[in-house]
Amino acid sequence: MTLEVRIEGATHFVGADVGTWRIVRNDPVRGEPLRHADRLVVVEPGSRVRAAATWILRGVPSYERYVRRAEQRELLARSPELGRLHATSAALIPISKSTAWWRLAQDERREIFEERSRHIATGLKYLPAVARRLYHGRDLGEPFDFLTWFEFAPQDAVAFEELVAMLRETEEWAFVEREIDIRLTKA
Amino acid sequence: MTLEVRIEGATHFVGADVGTWRIVRNDPVRGEPLRHADRLVVVEPGSRVRAAATWILRGVPSYERYVRRAEQRELLARSPELGRLHATSAALIPISKSTAWWRLAQDERREIFEERSRHIATGLKYLPAVARRLYHGRDLGEPFDFLTWFEFAPQDAVAFEELVAMLRETEEWAFVEREIDIRLTKA
Repeated sequence: MTLEVRIEGATHFVGADVGTWRIVRNDPVRGEPLRHADRLVVVEPGSRVRAAATWILRGVPSYERYVRRAEQRELLARSPELGRLHATSAALIPISKSTAWWRLAQDERREIFEERSRHIATGLKYLPAVARRLYHGRDLGEPFDFLTWFEFAPQDAVAFEELVAMLRETEEWAFVEREIDIRLTKA
Repeated sequence: MTLEVRIEGATHFVGADVGTWRIVRNDPVRGEPLRHADRLVVVEPGSRVRAAATWILRGVPSYERYVRRAEQRELLARSPELGRLHATSAALIPISKSTAWWRLAQDERREIFEERSRHIATGLKYLPAVARRLYHGRDLGEPFDFLTWFEFAPQDAVAFEELVAMLRETEEWAFVEREIDIRLTKA
């Protein structure tokens, strides 16, 4: 479909024929795959895009669900901005979690997420090399609960693989029902 | 505006000329008021509505942000279904919280919400008399972060006033920037 929409509220990740990011891999890790697209364009709220879109994934940055004060302070201190010139590699990892996960109480989810899976601590180890931004899609009725966007220099690709592999080994990841691993390079 | 939309994902609370609930009060508690409407129609996802709408507020039930396991168990055990025949009184209370609230870490918000403001404990005291359902609008880019819907019998109106007054006295409520108090009776 050719798309011309004014984008409001959410950030739109558009798999298309044009875009600043070239899609070099698009692998279904778990569940249904995502159709092939050559390029990705990231469209921020309030802007417009005209593209032949294969898919559109939406998410909002939102507020933090599990991060405690001390962790928040450390994350803020160590997180770089997106768009660094040397960060010409990127990844978009859309995931959805199971109903069992979403029925857990807040303290049970936190316990699995951080005390047992070290999600925040693991991410921190790769800062500032691997910049990261989380977008929430669940309340929007999107097919993916979360879209995580990563940016890093090509020489940090090995570190990034390590980070992704560690997270996939965790107890938290047992609740992931669908996951796509999209890798990109700046076009 | 006359509206005919297929409703998807979110529950829509439509201030209109028709609807099963008659609006008997529509008071701005804090911030900008909401325009006058005679009736309210609650439109669930997947259905259609045709109405002269004055306003439309959207929200999704979503998952729990602060509730711990023991609290969740107690809430589930004591919460009645909506739509009880004797519950002919209702309230819709849309609120938005400040940027300062949303920038707090998860543990800081929980601390204010429950340890210091007793939001869950207070609500529990009025169960099962006052049935309650929370809808989230923040990630949807809605004007209100939350829409809370309450249903109760007319003879429980005094108890309901008590509950609302207690919450408004809390530290949590200092973060509320906009609040509307809409009261309804079954038409």
